Amino acid sequence: MKKPNYIAIAATTIDGRIAKHSRHFSSWTSKEDKDFLHAILDTCDVILVGRSTYDMAKKPLSKRNCIVLTRDTANKKDTPGLTYINPTKKSLPQLIKKCDYKKIGILGGEQIYSYCLEKNLLDELFLTIEPVSFGFGLSLFKTKKLAQWKLKSIKKLNNKGTILLHYLKSYGK
Amino acid sequence: MKKPNYIAIAATTIDGRIAKHSRHFSSWTSKEDKDFLHAILDTCDVILVGRSTYDMAKKPLSKRNCIVLTRDTANKKDTPGLTYINPTKKSLPQLIKKCDYKKIGILGGEQIYSYCLEKNLLDELFLTIEPVSFGFGLSLFKTKKLAQWKLKSIKKLNNKGTILLHYLKSYGK
Repeated sequence: MKKPNYIAIAATTIDGRIAKHSRHFSSWTSKEDKDFLHAILDTCDVILVGRSTYDMAKKPLSKRNCIVLTRDTANKKDTPGLTYINPTKKSLPQLIKKCDYKKIGILGGEQIYSYCLEKNLLDELFLTIEPVSFGFGLSLFKTKKLAQWKLKSIKKLNNKGTILLHYLKSYGK
Repeated sequence: MKKPNYIAIAATTIDGRIAKHSRHFSSWTSKEDKDFLHAILDTCDVILVGRSTYDMAKKPLSKRNCIVLTRDTANKKDTPGLTYINPTKKSLPQLIKKCDYKKIGILGGEQIYSYCLEKNLLDELFLTIEPVSFGFGLSLFKTKKLAQWKLKSIKKLNNKGTILLHYLKSYGK
């Protein structure tokens, strides 16, 4: 049986910020990045997001299968295609297995990317770098876990210089 | 008379960290990045660094003209090619002008990159991205000043996927 493939998709500034703060919506990214994002999400069986990211993108995400990671599942109702889970209480990989999801798109934010990295639930990373610097804000990862990656491809998305980097996680290092 | 050209040179992880902490020496970068760094420094008239970066790289920097930015110049002796300056008390651009330096290589760390960005003393950025993530550490910039950039070139430096991005600062935006 094929192992599920966990793919993080993120956009950062040249100074490595994915957002100015936890309520900063990703409207600052280029049209070309958004086009890529929608295209790759269309290929995923399910989207994995944190609660605040989900709340900000509820409308566009409502048409997709979503697993929302949250500490507080008490007042959250699951609906078809939408599952809330506290991964410290229930097993995320078991849920993925039960639903037979094979391609998991991880949409962030910082806590979710970090959680997946720590738990070895991150096989690939599509990283868009927009030609802007914020000077402050959230990073891609906030964790003590170092990781090695292998660059698979580079693509220039537009004339102003948005680039898309595709990395594979190096295991066993 | 030609305006001086301020060029920042930095290496980051894929999560945007230039170092794990302020005493973390840049030994984690690839040989290919170091080769590029030395080659571009050879073309600069002077190197601009913060005191802690200078103290860590004193030996390799001793053969180059250096301006060291520091709050405490009291116990620092200038020697030929080496000038300590507190930029809140003396003008850095005036010093550059007086010495007739035309190409200034900015080597960091975070405070110096940020200072130069804030003061419009940053025209170009050579950013190496190493295929590793730290999960924590210092960023390229720590400032409230947002900036727009234009990507001039992308170069793959080695097989594991170290890349070198060359950005020009966009002014007037």
